[in-house]
Amino acid sequence: MQNYKAILEEIYTDGLNATDKGTVASYIPELAHIDKNNFGIHLKTLDGIEYGAGNFNTPFSIQSISKVLALSKAMALIGESVWKRVDVEPSGHPFNQLALLELENGIPRNPLINSGAIVIADILLSHLKNPKEDFLNYVRELTSDTNINYNLEVAKSEKNTGYKNFAAANLLKSFNNLVNSVDDVLDFYFHQCSIEMTCSQLSNAFFFLANKGYCLTNTAHLTKTQAKRINAIMLTCGFYDEAGEFAFEVGLPGKSGVGGGIVALLPNHFVITTWSPGLNKKGNSKLGMLALEQFTTKTKLSIF
Amino acid sequence: MQNYKAILEEIYTDGLNATDKGTVASYIPELAHIDKNNFGIHLKTLDGIEYGAGNFNTPFSIQSISKVLALSKAMALIGESVWKRVDVEPSGHPFNQLALLELENGIPRNPLINSGAIVIADILLSHLKNPKEDFLNYVRELTSDTNINYNLEVAKSEKNTGYKNFAAANLLKSFNNLVNSVDDVLDFYFHQCSIEMTCSQLSNAFFFLANKGYCLTNTAHLTKTQAKRINAIMLTCGFYDEAGEFAFEVGLPGKSGVGGGIVALLPNHFVITTWSPGLNKKGNSKLGMLALEQFTTKTKLSIF
Amino acid sequence: MQNYKAILEEIYTDGLNATDKGTVASYIPELAHIDKNNFGIHLKTLDGIEYGAGNFNTPFSIQSISKVLALSKAMALIGESVWKRVDVEPSGHPFNQLALLELENGIPRNPLINSGAIVIADILLSHLKNPKEDFLNYVRELTSDTNINYNLEVAKSEKNTGYKNFAAANLLKSFNNLVNSVDDVLDFYFHQCSIEMTCSQLSNAFFFLANKGYCLTNTAHLTKTQAKRINAIMLTCGFYDEAGEFAFEVGLPGKSGVGGGIVALLPNHFVITTWSPGLNKKGNSKLGMLALEQFTTKTKLSIF
Amino acid sequence: MQNYKAILEEIYTDGLNATDKGTVASYIPELAHIDKNNFGIHLKTLDGIEYGAGNFNTPFSIQSISKVLALSKAMALIGESVWKRVDVEPSGHPFNQLALLELENGIPRNPLINSGAIVIADILLSHLKNPKEDFLNYVRELTSDTNINYNLEVAKSEKNTGYKNFAAANLLKSFNNLVNSVDDVLDFYFHQCSIEMTCSQLSNAFFFLANKGYCLTNTAHLTKTQAKRINAIMLTCGFYDEAGEFAFEVGLPGKSGVGGGIVALLPNHFVITTWSPGLNKKGNSKLGMLALEQFTTKTKLSIF
Repeated sequence: MQNYKAILEEIYTDGLNATDKGTVASYIPELAHIDKNNFGIHLKTLDGIEYGAGNFNTPFSIQSISKVLALSKAMALIGESVWKRVDVEPSGHPFNQLALLELENGIPRNPLINSGAIVIADILLSHLKNPKEDFLNYVRELTSDTNINYNLEVAKSEKNTGYKNFAAANLLKSFNNLVNSVDDVLDFYFHQCSIEMTCSQLSNAFFFLANKGYCLTNTAHLTKTQAKRINAIMLTCGFYDEAGEFAFEVGLPGKSGVGGGIVALLPNHFVITTWSPGLNKKGNSKLGMLALEQFTTKTKLSIF
Repeated sequence: MQNYKAILEEIYTDGLNATDKGTVASYIPELAHIDKNNFGIHLKTLDGIEYGAGNFNTPFSIQSISKVLALSKAMALIGESVWKRVDVEPSGHPFNQLALLELENGIPRNPLINSGAIVIADILLSHLKNPKEDFLNYVRELTSDTNINYNLEVAKSEKNTGYKNFAAANLLKSFNNLVNSVDDVLDFYFHQCSIEMTCSQLSNAFFFLANKGYCLTNTAHLTKTQAKRINAIMLTCGFYDEAGEFAFEVGLPGKSGVGGGIVALLPNHFVITTWSPGLNKKGNSKLGMLALEQFTTKTKLSIF
Repeated sequence: MQNYKAILEEIYTDGLNATDKGTVASYIPELAHIDKNNFGIHLKTLDGIEYGAGNFNTPFSIQSISKVLALSKAMALIGESVWKRVDVEPSGHPFNQLALLELENGIPRNPLINSGAIVIADILLSHLKNPKEDFLNYVRELTSDTNINYNLEVAKSEKNTGYKNFAAANLLKSFNNLVNSVDDVLDFYFHQCSIEMTCSQLSNAFFFLANKGYCLTNTAHLTKTQAKRINAIMLTCGFYDEAGEFAFEVGLPGKSGVGGGIVALLPNHFVITTWSPGLNKKGNSKLGMLALEQFTTKTKLSIF
Repeated sequence: MQNYKAILEEIYTDGLNATDKGTVASYIPELAHIDKNNFGIHLKTLDGIEYGAGNFNTPFSIQSISKVLALSKAMALIGESVWKRVDVEPSGHPFNQLALLELENGIPRNPLINSGAIVIADILLSHLKNPKEDFLNYVRELTSDTNINYNLEVAKSEKNTGYKNFAAANLLKSFNNLVNSVDDVLDFYFHQCSIEMTCSQLSNAFFFLANKGYCLTNTAHLTKTQAKRINAIMLTCGFYDEAGEFAFEVGLPGKSGVGGGIVALLPNHFVITTWSPGLNKKGNSKLGMLALEQFTTKTKLSIF
């Protein structure tokens, strides 16, 4: 058995000493103030091992990482019907995501880009009784932790400045790929993205995807096939424009968020979460990407 | 001197007998019910000749034709500053106008496509004291006709279904190319497009562009240079995806609207307006395009 | 009557004194060595007035200006059939011309962009008995000047380095929009572009387009309608990405070449040619554009 | 242990009975005549199990599958330097691959699309002493089978009709991303694609990628890391426009060819090859895709 603790500590120390820690995203005003020296790593294996280093217990805005959980809930609710409204192909360029959506008649490339996640939010809004409450409870159940909440300030901040999301939602609506009103869907979507979690909470929340659909309490939240498929989508689409790079360098399914978090997992083995708010040019956490690269290099663990 | 009357009547008769009169636009519900057998032509020359045929005194929704008048007002208000926020190049494909806007960082290709006209509306909103009232008065003054109004039902109808325009406005806002709020700008824009005029009113309204900036009452609304430039923009950008075709077949500056109107003009000579609500595949009035082609063929009058 | 001589001399002096004379195109090695201080202007009116200033009698590589003459010959040969293989719409971005060609299934946007001109070259190759000889004779006839020739070094230089043109021609071939072999078509095309002419020769060559199809010797080379249509295409498509700008600022149909030449004309009035090899960012002659802007501003002559 | 034999036979029988067997590619004339009732499957596990069903010993044109072997050789020759000239991101739309190449300044998205594979061919041409002979020997060594050859007729057929590849190669050349001449590179590339192999030969050839870089004879052809990375690229980029779909439905790294072959593998476990020449709309073998979907469903084996 590998000495995960030593490896994680080594990686953590390297990260702390990195001279270039990236740039904190400024387009969401509420997130612009986070200190980029924050750095946390947390590993949880299916056989019960758990290690954390640095700020792994500090809550941060999970942002796009929430898209995976929203997709899971949508698949649990309506199964394969999800794929009538969103595709599963990588998207390439993030800079022209509206262009792609226009060209492809309002069917988003995949559920992990904004336009796709907005369609998923629309599905949840249609199928959950109390959407915001129910979705938060779903995340709490997955995590076995009731101490998880929306950050209402962040949600409001995005609502006031998220013009590109309003553009995408209106474009979806123009193609009849949004059932609810643009305002209702985005209100839900901005809340979903505003959830705050720590590295250890995220490792717990994603445990079911490494564990054939069964969460920490052994409750089935997805079928084994559904869990596999979400992992496949994370691998091919989880890192914006850098999905290929991540598969190439790290070799694990995962998802990053603009808040600086990354969750990655090796099916049947472990979940690993990193957090550092400085981003690289492609919008993924600079230290997080490096840490995960080193982790799979040192442990020689990857799906390939 | 040419026998305009005989020519117009011949063209009118040909149009009436056409078997294919195009398809009435259905995306604006309020316009979907107009009878496509409507057909009117009206000619006004600078030396005082005026002829009309068919439904040239029936009001219709001028829609995108209003973009030329809004541009004129914006140029009158802030002059060359307009061009800091919108370009003057033809746009090509209408189907991917958001793609272009994304690629070109929120600077619309020209002021006669929707995104460009939304920027112009934003300018008017910032510089007019009572924007809707003042713009309507401007159109009435140009036309020397107080009997011109917004159609509030049409404006409301567009507001409720104009998702692509909301998408474009939000995208502009995300690039900081919209000063006022999306809702305020589009409220003004939808009113502007909802103006109803007859063929003869439109010929009168556009008279100043054929007449070096001087309207019917000899008031200067633009400098000679500004009038020329608007004519140049109409020629290169006035017919969506068919601007080149129109220049090629007709050879006059002009502007079409989805309500089925077309205004065209020969500088220093005449303005001609047609209306027939059936559109061709590119979104321009089927009979109007044919009528104008025939008119310049028969009269041998064009800018080329 | 205007004092053209005084105006041209004033413009010429302004050009000579300009501090920024643009950048000589370097992608055709043979053209990279031309001194950018060269500057010539030549005007020829239909009523027989003719003025020249500066290097108006120095031959230069006409490059893309030849596309207009090739198009004229193709229209004279096969008439409207030309439009089955090439469209008449402005193209916008030059940087993605292959993208457009791909998207539009091998039908070039217009005959004045490279891909469109290659299709025209293919037509000439199919319909001329001795293509290179016949085309040169056509240009000599239009100009009433047998002292015009291909520059074989320039043609060869382009053949060895014109990879983008080979890419375009192969793409056209893949869409079955090239009858002859890629090598044969491009050999002809590179010769066509390599023709050398002076400003005064170009004014003479384009005289027929200002004169309803009749050249200097009063021979009809095109019908009046065909001449008008070529003028319309020049106006909407003659200046790469800057066609709208040229229409807006200058207001004349015209065509520029990467060798630094520009020909523009006012139908029924005059042809004006400028040459200065320094180009602006969009690939059009820096001094030429300025000179033509000033000319139409000072003379108040334009089609609008 | 699973009963692979029973599973493969069941899948084979289902395939034979399928009513829709796709459409044989017609753009390579030499391949258009293959009977689409051909269907073969072959499995080889790392622990020595081997099964075949149907036409698994019939040679077919491996076409794009060769890109993986060419990439392997290039990585073995120059290591990470490969990535200076080609990226590792999925490409999305195949229909506009030249558009992407233009937009991204001549750096192909990944080495498994045509433009990327042409760059790899250029690398091999520069680094192999006798390129065609050496590459063939490399494939023979990987496979432990000297009975593998180019099909010269197919290579010639592609050379005469492969205009899109000539377009791509010239575009690469225009961006200085091709060292050798277009003709030399494509001559090599068309030979590489023309290699004929059987399902069982392909399983043998790809064995090293499932086996940490070691081929059947236990010779190391790549490092473990390099093998992993090629698997990552196959997963994200191996199926044209359907890479996400394949990851989603099948969950294995793999590569398809227009000749109807597909190779897929589970690292450390097995290689599986299918062949059936009828293609689906996206250009991948219809029966092959179905067979691989069923195989991973029935065996519950995938990287996720």
